[in-house]
Amino acid sequence: MTANRLFSRTARGSVSSIGERALIGSIRRWLGPASPRAPAGIGDDCAVLPPPRGRELLTVDPVAYGIHFDDRIPARAAGAKLLKRNLSDIAAMGGRPRAAVVALALDGRVSIEWLAEFYRGLARESRLRGVPVVGGDVTLLPGSFVATLALTGEATGRILTRTGSRAGDWIYVTGAVGRSVRTRHHYLFEPRLAEGAWLARRKGVRAMIDVSDGLAKDLAALTPKGAVPAVYAARLPRRAGATVREALCDGEDYELAFSVAPGAGCAALEKAWRRGFPRTRLTSIGRFVRTGAVPPDAIPLGRFRGYEHFR
Amino acid sequence: MTANRLFSRTARGSVSSIGERALIGSIRRWLGPASPRAPAGIGDDCAVLPPPRGRELLTVDPVAYGIHFDDRIPARAAGAKLLKRNLSDIAAMGGRPRAAVVALALDGRVSIEWLAEFYRGLARESRLRGVPVVGGDVTLLPGSFVATLALTGEATGRILTRTGSRAGDWIYVTGAVGRSVRTRHHYLFEPRLAEGAWLARRKGVRAMIDVSDGLAKDLAALTPKGAVPAVYAARLPRRAGATVREALCDGEDYELAFSVAPGAGCAALEKAWRRGFPRTRLTSIGRFVRTGAVPPDAIPLGRFRGYEHFR
Repeated sequence: MTANRLFSRTARGSVSSIGERALIGSIRRWLGPASPRAPAGIGDDCAVLPPPRGRELLTVDPVAYGIHFDDRIPARAAGAKLLKRNLSDIAAMGGRPRAAVVALALDGRVSIEWLAEFYRGLARESRLRGVPVVGGDVTLLPGSFVATLALTGEATGRILTRTGSRAGDWIYVTGAVGRSVRTRHHYLFEPRLAEGAWLARRKGVRAMIDVSDGLAKDLAALTPKGAVPAVYAARLPRRAGATVREALCDGEDYELAFSVAPGAGCAALEKAWRRGFPRTRLTSIGRFVRTGAVPPDAIPLGRFRGYEHFR
Repeated sequence: MTANRLFSRTARGSVSSIGERALIGSIRRWLGPASPRAPAGIGDDCAVLPPPRGRELLTVDPVAYGIHFDDRIPARAAGAKLLKRNLSDIAAMGGRPRAAVVALALDGRVSIEWLAEFYRGLARESRLRGVPVVGGDVTLLPGSFVATLALTGEATGRILTRTGSRAGDWIYVTGAVGRSVRTRHHYLFEPRLAEGAWLARRKGVRAMIDVSDGLAKDLAALTPKGAVPAVYAARLPRRAGATVREALCDGEDYELAFSVAPGAGCAALEKAWRRGFPRTRLTSIGRFVRTGAVPPDAIPLGRFRGYEHFR
């Protein structure tokens, strides 16, 4: 299996052996039905799309070699992860994804075989989610590989932002957190699109975020002024073997964290959730409380930092 | 002047000295009014935008260090170029740009001062064109710098694609071509947004493309089946000092090439153009003719290759 190896060991197997024009032709072939023809897809100066129904959502996230993937994971998984990372951002607003564009910056020594698998993984995820890849760009970048995907989406109903929580709100998190890399969850995860859309329709759900930089850091972004999260170690849905620190700081969980108004009926919400998403765990991990009113048994979250690049 | 130098000579002046969170705060400050607040801008999982009027346009293009810019050009110019490259793609469809997201992948040794200037250049162009930067991402990428911008636009009227030309059509090009790098045109250019929108409203204009990979290669993409471009060397609007080969192959012209139906009244079009765009040169460089009917004095375009990465 050489498809896991980003850099080709032979000149003949590298993208520089075929040139840009042939490479773009290959990419279109690898994407297959995931990539419609111009003007709705690749092949013109821009892609042309029908307008979204309702407001538009727009996000961008890359996968970089050595940062978001490496030779230990299959090329197909890296390609799928590129789309899934962005889908998780659309999910966190309760939206529906529409179409993607992909800019590739790569060293000429990148293996054609690896890249084919990367695009096949992306194409599979694209078809699965009904999100066509409608355009892109290829550029030379000596020594590196980074693929950047921008995703447009739409929201026909309510949009859940990070703001809107209040002191007293319950805090929920989907799935489990921590040890994302060691458990391979960082590329095996399923973006919570259906769950996010469901939560946006649910009264009492006030604010939501995609947990990707570690729960401690992402909860901070969800916290209203004058309040702090009171979260309990015993309640944290930890992924297999994860310590409390790993659950709070590791990042790449791609779960949803959200707040629920105290009078909204948490029992009813949890019951409806189990009916709608019997295979997705949902955990109440604590509440937002006024600053200074943190119960002594709550985790001192200020001591935990999330994932930060350049640190 | 150290602002031209991408990599900092001191650890204290590098982005790794401040970490991701502080870097994102700085980016928002550098962008200033070019970047609205969340949910319409940076600060949530996605940006939320009103739906476009009419069909949506979507494109993506990067600037990579050593490829699209280097230490010989001001950091501000590199930042402006990032948006302008994408604006040129919207111009080539006759559309109007709406909003941008920017993903940054960079080495920790990148100079904060350089990056500040890069974003100030981007912000200035963003305000000038009324195209807010509504979101982004920052990731570590050892040894490299690549900024990728995705741009959404709208088209309320006709969209000009690359297809639709016929044998017999006249071929026009705006501005001048060739020697883009030596003349600094590759970052000083003005995207032809007003011109593109005007051409899309003009009857008889059939197809259009952004000239960015060299006129020879881009004309090939505009050429209908069964035809070839008959273009004349004497008519080529060459940039200062450019040879015919440079005019055809250099790339990074960011001009518009388009075709006009033979019965559409070229004289009237040229007259209206001079009234509307007195400072933008417009040149009829030849026509599309049936394969085999190429006049002997036309340029044998098949012998000229445009710009290709990995070659």
